[in-house]
Amino acid sequence: MRPISRSILILVAATFAAPVMSDGHSSAALEAAAKARGASMSLVGYNIGILGNMAKGDAPYDAALATAAAENLLAAASMSRIALYLEGSEQGAVPGSRAKAEIWSDPTGFEEKAVALETAAAAMVTAAGTDLDALRGQMQALGGTCGDCHKAYRGPRN
Amino acid sequence: MRPISRSILILVAATFAAPVMSDGHSSAALEAAAKARGASMSLVGYNIGILGNMAKGDAPYDAALATAAAENLLAAASMSRIALYLEGSEQGAVPGSRAKAEIWSDPTGFEEKAVALETAAAAMVTAAGTDLDALRGQMQALGGTCGDCHKAYRGPRN
Repeated sequence: MRPISRSILILVAATFAAPVMSDGHSSAALEAAAKARGASMSLVGYNIGILGNMAKGDAPYDAALATAAAENLLAAASMSRIALYLEGSEQGAVPGSRAKAEIWSDPTGFEEKAVALETAAAAMVTAAGTDLDALRGQMQALGGTCGDCHKAYRGPRN
Repeated sequence: MRPISRSILILVAATFAAPVMSDGHSSAALEAAAKARGASMSLVGYNIGILGNMAKGDAPYDAALATAAAENLLAAASMSRIALYLEGSEQGAVPGSRAKAEIWSDPTGFEEKAVALETAAAAMVTAAGTDLDALRGQMQALGGTCGDCHKAYRGPRN
């Protein structure tokens, strides 16, 4: 039997050195998607924080800032799931990801929760610019959508 | 002369212990704003990365993913500067910030650069969904807006 040629060894090595692919996405792309989701969640949290501080009286009510925060929250919440939730970027498959596999196995259920946040954020844009009472009145509905989605589709801390 | 009363000392201590305020924002709010800007820039970079990888041929052209990336880029680029660029959150005043003071001393110039990115991102939404040539054709205009703004309004690495 001929010894395995050097070129075959190189070919095999190159195959295993290539990024692990899932649904056509490189492992770098999947890792970047998980990080980008983290960034979008940071923006959701930042803007809810601005609104929450006003609701609690920890910051003065400022209609322009509250409206801007609600608009930015809506922008973050409305981002296309196609680009952020690349198939194969679930928790366990990608470092730092807390996305449950159910996001991809139950896309309709996940989309419903995501749209619930969009709807609550859109209502907050109006409420935030009205007055402090209206802002406070919309905080609970808004906060509820976070918990609802995280309970079903976010995994434990890594 | 009476010795300074205990209550006055407590009052003075409490005053200095309070977060440093700037334009009504607490130091925690200013630091959060700088972090939120970082998150929005991460999302801009992530989505330009998806488009850039397709443009370079490092990832296969996918009209739906390219459109989603361009839409998310537009959403991030269009976020209100009122909530992200809180006055007092410039480089030097807030840890991690690279925002030059010129953002606030020259708001018209800064807004122009920000709107240039929005315009290029909106054009990319159309181009990205058309075909790979159209996407490639819009990449340079898009990338140019990043450099233009950073040159004028982003400080050196911290």
